[in-house]
Amino acid sequence: MPLSPRASIGIALDEVDTPALVLDLDALERNLLRMADAVKGSGVRLRPHAKSHKCAEIARAQIAAGAVGVCCQKVSEAEALVAGGVADVLVTNEIVGKQKLACLARLVREAKVGVLADDAGNVAELDAAARAEDVRLDVLVEIDVGAHRCGIEAGEPALALARRVASCRGLRFAGLHAYHGSVQHVRDPRERRAAIAAAAEKARLTKTLIANSGIACETVTGAGTGTFMLESASRVYNEIQPGSYVFMDADYNRNLWEEGWPRFEQSLFVLATVMSAPSPGHAVLDAGLKASSVDSGMPQVHERPGVEYVRASDEHGVLKIAAAAKAPKLGEKLLLVPGHCDPTVNLYDWFVCVRKGKVEALWAVTARGAVW
Amino acid sequence: MPLSPRASIGIALDEVDTPALVLDLDALERNLLRMADAVKGSGVRLRPHAKSHKCAEIARAQIAAGAVGVCCQKVSEAEALVAGGVADVLVTNEIVGKQKLACLARLVREAKVGVLADDAGNVAELDAAARAEDVRLDVLVEIDVGAHRCGIEAGEPALALARRVASCRGLRFAGLHAYHGSVQHVRDPRERRAAIAAAAEKARLTKTLIANSGIACETVTGAGTGTFMLESASRVYNEIQPGSYVFMDADYNRNLWEEGWPRFEQSLFVLATVMSAPSPGHAVLDAGLKASSVDSGMPQVHERPGVEYVRASDEHGVLKIAAAAKAPKLGEKLLLVPGHCDPTVNLYDWFVCVRKGKVEALWAVTARGAVW
Repeated sequence: MPLSPRASIGIALDEVDTPALVLDLDALERNLLRMADAVKGSGVRLRPHAKSHKCAEIARAQIAAGAVGVCCQKVSEAEALVAGGVADVLVTNEIVGKQKLACLARLVREAKVGVLADDAGNVAELDAAARAEDVRLDVLVEIDVGAHRCGIEAGEPALALARRVASCRGLRFAGLHAYHGSVQHVRDPRERRAAIAAAAEKARLTKTLIANSGIACETVTGAGTGTFMLESASRVYNEIQPGSYVFMDADYNRNLWEEGWPRFEQSLFVLATVMSAPSPGHAVLDAGLKASSVDSGMPQVHERPGVEYVRASDEHGVLKIAAAAKAPKLGEKLLLVPGHCDPTVNLYDWFVCVRKGKVEALWAVTARGAVW
Repeated sequence: MPLSPRASIGIALDEVDTPALVLDLDALERNLLRMADAVKGSGVRLRPHAKSHKCAEIARAQIAAGAVGVCCQKVSEAEALVAGGVADVLVTNEIVGKQKLACLARLVREAKVGVLADDAGNVAELDAAARAEDVRLDVLVEIDVGAHRCGIEAGEPALALARRVASCRGLRFAGLHAYHGSVQHVRDPRERRAAIAAAAEKARLTKTLIANSGIACETVTGAGTGTFMLESASRVYNEIQPGSYVFMDADYNRNLWEEGWPRFEQSLFVLATVMSAPSPGHAVLDAGLKASSVDSGMPQVHERPGVEYVRASDEHGVLKIAAAAKAPKLGEKLLLVPGHCDPTVNLYDWFVCVRKGKVEALWAVTARGAVW
């Protein structure tokens, strides 16, 4: 059932069958270097988020470029990454349910694995699962720093939960998770700065409380591609988790950035073919909802001014072509910049990796569909 | 790489690991019967659209319930369905590109296969591909009946293209494709009725023109779950292509229906677990953008009044819980009705098929990810 890649090494990009998930290796490598440079000397560890790429090959490249390990969101992702040679994985999520907890505990035998908690009952279940496997599992307490998704309240409630983790024989309290997800895509960098200042303050207070109670708080982790420079400079966070910087997407490209921040390049594309061009000003691509996620807006047509992807149905993308624009011809292949990289990658089994217009490698999306 | 199902036959629904794509077999079977009843005696052939389910098992069940074959959108879907035992597949789409055309022509050796065309150059390529394989390929001319996606103009332009198809040694002109996709989800049934009346008129005129020119126009096909009763009654269409009726989804459930039309039941669900419940009125599910497509709105929580799925991120679904509602507990499993069935199914490798609360079967999503 895993689909074969519809490309082979050595062919030209234009010969790749469509829709295909295309990765520009030069741009990817420059993004890896830019992130390594940005983190260098800050005293902050880089632990990129693998939920964006779900690819053991890219995780290993990130580690080779200085990352201490990776993050992921699901136990099944962690399993796939560890099987793909990644030795240090933090599941930046609460894990609930007997089956998942047993898998998580088993994984501790094979790699350094950590997980989050925001509930005392769940901590007891984590402990039971770890003890059943006779392992010790790293647990970070997640605090809500403004995203209002998961996470216990900062301050005393977090301290109480940290104490509980520290008291469990099967668990090791490893620190705080303080990620502000909803601010990553706020366009104005001043608003992002203000939100992360408030988040860092909550993390700082909680860390101090915990340290004062005599519990070591080794790690404070969080941050995404939209804010990681702020957490890095906060003197509270000592680990950051950006994910999308390897690829970028149309939504992140709409953010405004502060001066002096690294600029990441678009390295991820969907290659699509014009399959119908029934009238002037109008054409249809063979890439719709099942080829590029639209949760954060339509994909954008790469380097084709006046050609706009205006509507997606299951397997079609409708293009509007301005009168002055060069109209794409039937059969022509266009590159799209996905609206949102993470759920787009999850639609594909393979990255078609391209350098200077030629296919250089085919990388499996190792954890494609690994949602449990 | 194909993920194993996280369920096994005989276990209770509540033991299925999450997120999981759950199919209620009783509801599915009733939907199949309702559609068979609705079509019976109308003189119209049923050719359900398999893009919704991508599952050979369901396609075979549809054929067993009276369908003449199925539709699909992609050559790779057709290949997967034919490999799964489906003998008659209409690709309701234009197919462009040498690789795809060669695969399509090869498939004619194994099954009855048809395809659409809306361009003379593409017709020449279809002919060349068929002749290279020494087969005869059924081609239907797609006319634009109001959806403004693919399709040539009705009337004389369509006649000219039909003539061209009929003149090709490798092709057989098999009729007209007249699908009005954009009207399927218009809520008011009177608006749908008016749009389909206009579509049927375009199809009728074009069919008459073609017949008067001495070319047999065997099939006029189109229709979806939102309108198929109208095309069936039109005396123009002799084949209909509803897809979503087998499953339904939150978006189709918002449509209003005329009296006397069959009512289809929700048979498709995403099972999700409450993974965090950090404060009253608020909980988080383990099913986000990678577990349920949000292009047509958020999923709905099934039979839990006052519990609303308000926000999706990659792997999280945020629930808002009304003060008077029964709050879901941490670890509790809830059924979600996906916003849009087709792209949701495409995220999964398996249907977990349930009857009366027990897992009865596991069906592969045969053509999951088959986008080319």
